[in-house]
Amino acid sequence: MMRSSWGFGQIVLLSLHVSLSTAFPDSILQILPENSGSSPHHRHRKIPRDDNLYCDSWRFVVEANDVGPWARIPSRCVAFVQDYVTNDRYRADSEAVADASLEFAKTVKVSGDGKDAWVFDIDETLLSNVPYYAVHGFGSETFDENSFDEWVDLAEAPALPASLRLCKELEQLGFKIFLLTGRTEFQRSATSKNLDYAGYSDWERLILRGPSDDGKPATVYKSERRKELEDEGYVIHGSSGDQWSDLNGFAVAERSFKLPNPLYYIA
Amino acid sequence: MMRSSWGFGQIVLLSLHVSLSTAFPDSILQILPENSGSSPHHRHRKIPRDDNLYCDSWRFVVEANDVGPWARIPSRCVAFVQDYVTNDRYRADSEAVADASLEFAKTVKVSGDGKDAWVFDIDETLLSNVPYYAVHGFGSETFDENSFDEWVDLAEAPALPASLRLCKELEQLGFKIFLLTGRTEFQRSATSKNLDYAGYSDWERLILRGPSDDGKPATVYKSERRKELEDEGYVIHGSSGDQWSDLNGFAVAERSFKLPNPLYYIA
Repeated sequence: MMRSSWGFGQIVLLSLHVSLSTAFPDSILQILPENSGSSPHHRHRKIPRDDNLYCDSWRFVVEANDVGPWARIPSRCVAFVQDYVTNDRYRADSEAVADASLEFAKTVKVSGDGKDAWVFDIDETLLSNVPYYAVHGFGSETFDENSFDEWVDLAEAPALPASLRLCKELEQLGFKIFLLTGRTEFQRSATSKNLDYAGYSDWERLILRGPSDDGKPATVYKSERRKELEDEGYVIHGSSGDQWSDLNGFAVAERSFKLPNPLYYIA
Repeated sequence: MMRSSWGFGQIVLLSLHVSLSTAFPDSILQILPENSGSSPHHRHRKIPRDDNLYCDSWRFVVEANDVGPWARIPSRCVAFVQDYVTNDRYRADSEAVADASLEFAKTVKVSGDGKDAWVFDIDETLLSNVPYYAVHGFGSETFDENSFDEWVDLAEAPALPASLRLCKELEQLGFKIFLLTGRTEFQRSATSKNLDYAGYSDWERLILRGPSDDGKPATVYKSERRKELEDEGYVIHGSSGDQWSDLNGFAVAERSFKLPNPLYYIA
């Protein structure tokens, strides 16, 4: 896999700073935990009514897993997706998912043998890449692995506030937290650093794609790794992810929790 | 199972006529196929911004199957759900699901041996019970089986326009249409009459709950019946339903299509 130069990474970083300070000051910062309470009133861009209806329905079929693989958001939905992820809807939706998750978690009889597990995906589940997508067309551009890998290496993705709260509450309840991500072993150090930066601690294990997982569909890779956890004696009570491929397949959790993601699709 | 008297059914019918002619003239009639094109501009009730945000997120977790069983919609979401099902969002969402279904259907190599199957649920999939729920609080009242059975006996539920179109196009493509419903054998005649009334024809088989299915969760009952179809040699390419219990379990279709339903939940 080609890696782009550090110079390109700096360009990305530069663009981010521009965005953060000028283009979407309230909106992007809203997802950063350190600003989460400081700016309750966010700017709503006016989206034409027809586009809103169309894009809301597009979002419905995407989130309900009714459409097959898709590469880019519809071009007429850029403003809609931008508004969704940078204003209060994304936050409200992911808070509602965290609430539903916690409501279930509280009904689980935690055994006390340290084998009660909860599996989290990372990107758009624990960490938000909205600052990256904000300078890459909010999902309307073809995914560029090189620039995304540079962004990952920066290790500055903010936490999704709802998931950070959920994660801490699950730990309190006695669940062991497993992080199961499509990121590769090459990204272990940056990922670990980023989780730290975003406030995640006390997770049990970080599982990344190894050489033997290369080219495997996410559903297969993630199912296999969940099966390994089960074989180690863990009971996977809950699983949280923004993609259906985080949740479906085999060795599925007792309950699965789909977080919103209108930015991209992973098979 | 107790059945209510015909007299109660007449009360329901009366209330419906009142609603249709006074309370929501545009909105309810919009879902009736014979009026579907005649009234493009629908009244939108103003929903407080906080309620809208809350109820939109509630709808997200419901549609993504993040919440467990629920008995009633949140009381603060009555106006939201009413607006959703009686104005253009419900229609647009179900049209988007039909489009996604058809896009997949066109990629299927239909064998020509008459064994290519598509399974449809009925309530809130082929037929709409919105006229019933319009006089029963839009999902905010506890489900009353007696009055609902009386409504079913009337056999006047309109088609969900998007599903009617999809059904006809699938038949043209050579799929055999199976109707798999939680309604019971006692309701076969009324259901058949209602399907006819709503414009459905040429379906292959209507499968209802028999005595041995009494008390079975919908997921189990529906999976068992899909398995029977597979054992008969049918290949279930697609499955359409408004409940996850229509789609999940075993003997699942190659692709499943979740339609919206913010009115009620069936386990």
